[in-house]
Amino acid sequence: MKTKAIRFALAQIDTCVGDLEGNAGKVMEYSRRAAVDDADVVVFPEMTLTGYPIEDLAFRATFRRAAWNTADRLARELDEEGLGRLYVVVGTVGTEHGSSLPQNRLVVLHKGVVWAGYDKHFLPNYGVFDEFRIFSPGTRSMVLEVRGRRIGVAICEDIWQDGGPVADLAERGIDVLLTINGSPYEEGKGSTRVDLGSRRAAEVDAPLIYLNQVGGQDDLVFDGGSFVIDRDGTLLERSPRFVEDLSYWTLPEPGSASRVSTLAAELDADKEVYTACVLGLKDYMAKNGFSGVVLGLSGGIDSALVAAMAADACGGDHVWGVSMPSMYSSDGSKDDAADLARNLGAHYDVQPIEPLFDAYQGQLGLEGVAAENLQARIRGVIVMAYSNSKGLLALATGNKSELACGYSTIYGDAVGGYAPIKDLLKTRVWQLARWRNEAAKQGVGIGGIVVVGNESGSRGVPCDEVIPVNSIIKPPSAELRPGQKDSDSLPEYDLLDKVLAAYIEHAHGRADLLADGFDEETVDTVMRLVDRAEWKRRQYPLGPKVTSLAFGRDRRLPITSRFRE
Amino acid sequence: MKTKAIRFALAQIDTCVGDLEGNAGKVMEYSRRAAVDDADVVVFPEMTLTGYPIEDLAFRATFRRAAWNTADRLARELDEEGLGRLYVVVGTVGTEHGSSLPQNRLVVLHKGVVWAGYDKHFLPNYGVFDEFRIFSPGTRSMVLEVRGRRIGVAICEDIWQDGGPVADLAERGIDVLLTINGSPYEEGKGSTRVDLGSRRAAEVDAPLIYLNQVGGQDDLVFDGGSFVIDRDGTLLERSPRFVEDLSYWTLPEPGSASRVSTLAAELDADKEVYTACVLGLKDYMAKNGFSGVVLGLSGGIDSALVAAMAADACGGDHVWGVSMPSMYSSDGSKDDAADLARNLGAHYDVQPIEPLFDAYQGQLGLEGVAAENLQARIRGVIVMAYSNSKGLLALATGNKSELACGYSTIYGDAVGGYAPIKDLLKTRVWQLARWRNEAAKQGVGIGGIVVVGNESGSRGVPCDEVIPVNSIIKPPSAELRPGQKDSDSLPEYDLLDKVLAAYIEHAHGRADLLADGFDEETVDTVMRLVDRAEWKRRQYPLGPKVTSLAFGRDRRLPITSRFRE
Repeated sequence: MKTKAIRFALAQIDTCVGDLEGNAGKVMEYSRRAAVDDADVVVFPEMTLTGYPIEDLAFRATFRRAAWNTADRLARELDEEGLGRLYVVVGTVGTEHGSSLPQNRLVVLHKGVVWAGYDKHFLPNYGVFDEFRIFSPGTRSMVLEVRGRRIGVAICEDIWQDGGPVADLAERGIDVLLTINGSPYEEGKGSTRVDLGSRRAAEVDAPLIYLNQVGGQDDLVFDGGSFVIDRDGTLLERSPRFVEDLSYWTLPEPGSASRVSTLAAELDADKEVYTACVLGLKDYMAKNGFSGVVLGLSGGIDSALVAAMAADACGGDHVWGVSMPSMYSSDGSKDDAADLARNLGAHYDVQPIEPLFDAYQGQLGLEGVAAENLQARIRGVIVMAYSNSKGLLALATGNKSELACGYSTIYGDAVGGYAPIKDLLKTRVWQLARWRNEAAKQGVGIGGIVVVGNESGSRGVPCDEVIPVNSIIKPPSAELRPGQKDSDSLPEYDLLDKVLAAYIEHAHGRADLLADGFDEETVDTVMRLVDRAEWKRRQYPLGPKVTSLAFGRDRRLPITSRFRE
Repeated sequence: MKTKAIRFALAQIDTCVGDLEGNAGKVMEYSRRAAVDDADVVVFPEMTLTGYPIEDLAFRATFRRAAWNTADRLARELDEEGLGRLYVVVGTVGTEHGSSLPQNRLVVLHKGVVWAGYDKHFLPNYGVFDEFRIFSPGTRSMVLEVRGRRIGVAICEDIWQDGGPVADLAERGIDVLLTINGSPYEEGKGSTRVDLGSRRAAEVDAPLIYLNQVGGQDDLVFDGGSFVIDRDGTLLERSPRFVEDLSYWTLPEPGSASRVSTLAAELDADKEVYTACVLGLKDYMAKNGFSGVVLGLSGGIDSALVAAMAADACGGDHVWGVSMPSMYSSDGSKDDAADLARNLGAHYDVQPIEPLFDAYQGQLGLEGVAAENLQARIRGVIVMAYSNSKGLLALATGNKSELACGYSTIYGDAVGGYAPIKDLLKTRVWQLARWRNEAAKQGVGIGGIVVVGNESGSRGVPCDEVIPVNSIIKPPSAELRPGQKDSDSLPEYDLLDKVLAAYIEHAHGRADLLADGFDEETVDTVMRLVDRAEWKRRQYPLGPKVTSLAFGRDRRLPITSRFRE
């Protein structure tokens, strides 16, 4: 008589939207490995075959048909390889007829067949999520029976809302709750997920398996960190963050106690955020076919941190740093840029902009902000020239504080196909730069990546600080006019970042901000800057919508998609 | 004994998102006029007080409170002015407590009080609409009783879906169905709305009043064209398109037949589309505080049509046309640009780019596409220099065919805060240019705007063709290398536009396109170009989402909003 224990393989993989064949290949590969390790059930993330999020690809019938064919073929190929005994749990897009919108679906591949699926019940439509727009909700819960054990299933948002399938499963009674997820990274979300998982495990009175995807997809980063938690809140398994992984956990025989499997180490806050940025960039490059990047190196902290992240994502020899000094650039800035490039092993070119600036000014005679913007835009043209002529991804180096306040030039320093630190406040940028220097000294690896710059540095001598200390400690300046400092136009960053966090992240209104203890002048300054900057950002570029389908808001297609009809 | 006939005033107004005070002022002004004309009920468009669409402003509690205070104050002020007897029907945002999302609400201002409202039932979440994301749906239908007559109400999408409040009202029995709308313009949508209205009037067995907003808001244009239709499909009233209007229609005494009120003339297709583009630009400028525009004038048809639209939107003397010839620009192109500017009474500057190009090339030595893009980007820098130094709105002149195929340079000719013809295919651009020349000859007015250029033209002599014929008939060329023609890189526009319409607007897949009769080579070329261009467009600019609220997809705020906390 067979054991009633069930061995689960947690396949925390990095999928690519639209890459049906590549994603299916990965399912096959992980299933093979899981079979060798005697797994019964192999679990993959939400929308495994299609990648996630698929946005308006959901509306393409050819895509939905292709996804169905992929699931069907994969089930047969698994069987043909002798893996038909496995229960392979994958996510995909539904293809049901007669329904106006498809479904976000979980299916089970077993014995050569795609078994009836479960459709996600709660379709998130807030923040980065648009699912109610593209999917129709499921209405029934599902229990998968494996050797007499009852496995309840749910998809991501289903466990974040009360009621629905989880409440239903609690009533029906299950031996384990299996959830597949595409849960994007937010700082501190790891522990939120575990707390939530604990609550749901108690609700269904059974262990909960939380399987998350990993990797960058467009402007999202998925951090993995899959786990298994018992009904009493004991963590039974924890997969590592930010890397693909295959871990195991066994649902014990009825009446036996669960055993704790491997628990991956937790990350400190700086490492977590830095790794998220590097992984986002690395995957964006890989999924969009870029092998190198170009960015302007000003000697300032923002471009220095972005260069370090880029070197960690693709290796210093795939990074082109271009110093573009003007008449207002200090010698210190130029030296810092050169030192950084050497420390990272990056390519380094100097393209002075003064002759170009003079040529424009001979015709245009600009003054004030227009003349400042001109310098930034000349640099933007040069960065794009490198991008176009060498096939490099242009990186914009703006941080969240300056972008929020509009302290940047559209078509100037804002030029780029990817902006690695656009979600980091300036104080965080400094903090991560210091952390990165420490990591280099200690030879820290981040999510499978060994940080660059820990061997030798500037001018061949051992390098104490990969990012020059001067870039970290000097007062920030755009260097667009003599003696300019950020603090001429903005509150000091320590204060500014606190107001920005309250106004933008916590949506505090004016009265709330005053109640938070910020002074009236600062509040009014920051609100005015942010509102104006948001307006400017939103207005480029626009046009009236005349015909029935335009490009703007109509088609929300993923950026990275390998789907070809 | 009072008559039981009810006189409706149809106030088809142009609101501005966030401008609570301005919108309320307009309601007051139109209500005064309607009172003078003996109206009983004054009807305004969907979300009158807040403007529409409000996007994520819905989430700001301060905004919802301010909207409520505005409705309350307006009701009192109407009463204080002796207009309390009017039933003033306006749209606004709901403020209900305990609900996680606010409502899209209709309220009635009467005798100094805001009367209980109706909440929109069907919340569209497709195409340009995001309402399910920001509103919670209403669940009850509402009948307003005025002198014993039963007025059923509905908001926009409520009549586009079967079931819901209309079905409910049909069962309850009403004397008239009143719908307030924010229905964005699409080509040919006017007759679709009338057909739908006719169907719903039959369903409720009563006349239907369709009141639509008018004006440009962000990238949408609302075309007005309000109407009243009888249960048998007879059109009883039709307001003009693309202008604010106050028309009247009387619901007759019970048993009496409805009489046909004014029917505004219909527009031909070219005039309709041209007017939509001009109104969109005109309102975008007005609502965002721009009094003038700048654009590059190449002598080609796209910039010529945009310049004509701009002159019609704000007057030729508020248009700055900049000719930026290179070594590859033909003399004919330069002459055409100069002639056009003179015909429109626009400012005209010449800024040769060759010296600037040479200065860059001395440093960069670019070849091929990179060198072509450099020319376009130098022009982009110059256009933005005019924009910054003179406070002008930069107009991008790209058409839909070239944008769809990626036949433009990011940060180059794509530079601009507004793109008036981004939704017009190239063949439509030619057609509208010819139409515009005819209109100038005939002194045609478009939506309250008299077209510019019909008095005198080039060099002070009478002008037969405002847009030089040469700009219309010559083979299109980007003039970025010697002898270059668009047809070197793209299929001929007659064919290309047909494939684009099928692929983009009708979402035909590859197999469908072949079945449409297009040849395989063309289909594959166009699909490859479009997919690549969409990818490029989407990728600028991006970054990973690290903290809980970033700028990208999290905050969907309107571009034009006058709301200040």
